Amino acid sequence: MAEFARDHGSRGTRVVLITSGGTKVPLESRTVRFLDNFSSGRRGSASAEYFLQAGYAVIFLHRHRSMYPYSRRYTSHNWLDTLRLVPSSDSSGHQVQVEQSQLPGIVRVLQEYGSMKESGRLLPVEFNTLSDYLHLLQAAAQAVSSLGSNAMFYLAAAVSDFYIPASEMPEHKIQSSSGPLQITMKMVPKMLSPLVKDWAPKAFVISFKLETDPSILIERARKALATYSHQVVVANVLDSRRSYVVIVTNTDEANLSVSEQEETLGVEIEEKIIKDLVARHTSFIGNLDEKNLACKN
Amino acid sequence: MAEFARDHGSRGTRVVLITSGGTKVPLESRTVRFLDNFSSGRRGSASAEYFLQAGYAVIFLHRHRSMYPYSRRYTSHNWLDTLRLVPSSDSSGHQVQVEQSQLPGIVRVLQEYGSMKESGRLLPVEFNTLSDYLHLLQAAAQAVSSLGSNAMFYLAAAVSDFYIPASEMPEHKIQSSSGPLQITMKMVPKMLSPLVKDWAPKAFVISFKLETDPSILIERARKALATYSHQVVVANVLDSRRSYVVIVTNTDEANLSVSEQEETLGVEIEEKIIKDLVARHTSFIGNLDEKNLACKN
Repeated sequence: MAEFARDHGSRGTRVVLITSGGTKVPLESRTVRFLDNFSSGRRGSASAEYFLQAGYAVIFLHRHRSMYPYSRRYTSHNWLDTLRLVPSSDSSGHQVQVEQSQLPGIVRVLQEYGSMKESGRLLPVEFNTLSDYLHLLQAAAQAVSSLGSNAMFYLAAAVSDFYIPASEMPEHKIQSSSGPLQITMKMVPKMLSPLVKDWAPKAFVISFKLETDPSILIERARKALATYSHQVVVANVLDSRRSYVVIVTNTDEANLSVSEQEETLGVEIEEKIIKDLVARHTSFIGNLDEKNLACKN
Repeated sequence: MAEFARDHGSRGTRVVLITSGGTKVPLESRTVRFLDNFSSGRRGSASAEYFLQAGYAVIFLHRHRSMYPYSRRYTSHNWLDTLRLVPSSDSSGHQVQVEQSQLPGIVRVLQEYGSMKESGRLLPVEFNTLSDYLHLLQAAAQAVSSLGSNAMFYLAAAVSDFYIPASEMPEHKIQSSSGPLQITMKMVPKMLSPLVKDWAPKAFVISFKLETDPSILIERARKALATYSHQVVVANVLDSRRSYVVIVTNTDEANLSVSEQEETLGVEIEEKIIKDLVARHTSFIGNLDEKNLACKN
């Protein structure tokens, strides 16, 4: 990660660290059962595409097997159904062909995917458990911190708030014959605090707030901004998260939404979110430059 | 499912219900967090292929997005990496081709997949939550019960032993600010009991016992047989489950294993398990026929 950040940073390319997918919290040390957070990785993987389009280099820190940029568009397919065997003259006697009609938009997706691979601007990093995630987030944050305000954090992963400390975890599978299950979980320390204060203090940091109860959403987003002193909270409600979000900062609230008509045209809310955030990032970098200039003069 | 069972049953085809993958247990009614059981669906999806090869019709009751027969062999691939664009004279100017060399064995897999689809002997059914699973299992059991001893249950899914009753579940996302999390979960009633006694009393029933501690494995398998009066427990230990299982019945214990040499040749333990169980199923059907004959005379 450090090399990736250095390479792109030295060319003046902005770098965004995207976290995506849910974390897994084991209940046993030889794990059969675990606590999981609902997240397919749709938001993070879609956002990665739009950041790449906007010219960013992307560290994509994602849950193993969660949605991935570009291939996410075909996750409902059984790929074998898109292939067919045709007789051929080669040694196996068969050639495998693609039923292109079953993969709408595949030519454009392959073009974008190919040019993204060529550019070397996507670095995928995988996690499974909460503890993987926490270690990798810290490593990534330290890797991009040298880029100063050119670095962005887009923390879309659904990170567990709770865990069981290794010392309190049973070694073996919990036996169902022992009766009802009583689990006590500790709170996970909030990583946003050291991230903003120590690991990458000059970066532009965006966290997410997902609630099921719309009435407490904005209040909780504001509280997060006050607690962690970062730049932006993207606030959303579980049921409407694909068509409506609020961009909350210390000074304003911007509503972004995708209309039904736009939806039928394939417009995604992530396109609007990234457009908004890239503009804010630009002005954040500009403001810092001005401040620095003012201090020097 | 009833129609599928009737169609195949009327032709004398044996029908197996395979359950596969882990169940999800919500912690909130508008679910953000859930308890999950570790299971990729590898065992169930591989077994489905070998049952199809052995001539069975298969109801494949599996967790949404868990491994699927045939396509399971390529789950580590990003499919987009196996496709390439070549210039063509058609309207889009591009044709999509498959890099066959990146998909080892694909010709044979597509042949088997194609002939299986043609035979109509695979019925996929999906579940997500524990409650989906329990309802579908009962419906499936009742659908195949008319087949008597020609029906087999191969219960490989990792089903949660614990759940939170709807009445005790919080509606909204549990707030992390409320401090450490205390969860009390009730025990899930064992479905094996009504399945064996009421839903499909003549069927050949196989359950699985997965432990992390090898020292209690056989004892717990025997206890399950004594409790539920079904025919077979496939006992396995988490760490060695891909190379070693014990087939436990009331009268014997058979060890099945895959040697390192076999493994390099691509031999899977499921091939051996299904061969063993199909033979036991045949003799189970024969014995019942003899008993019936004895009663009639």
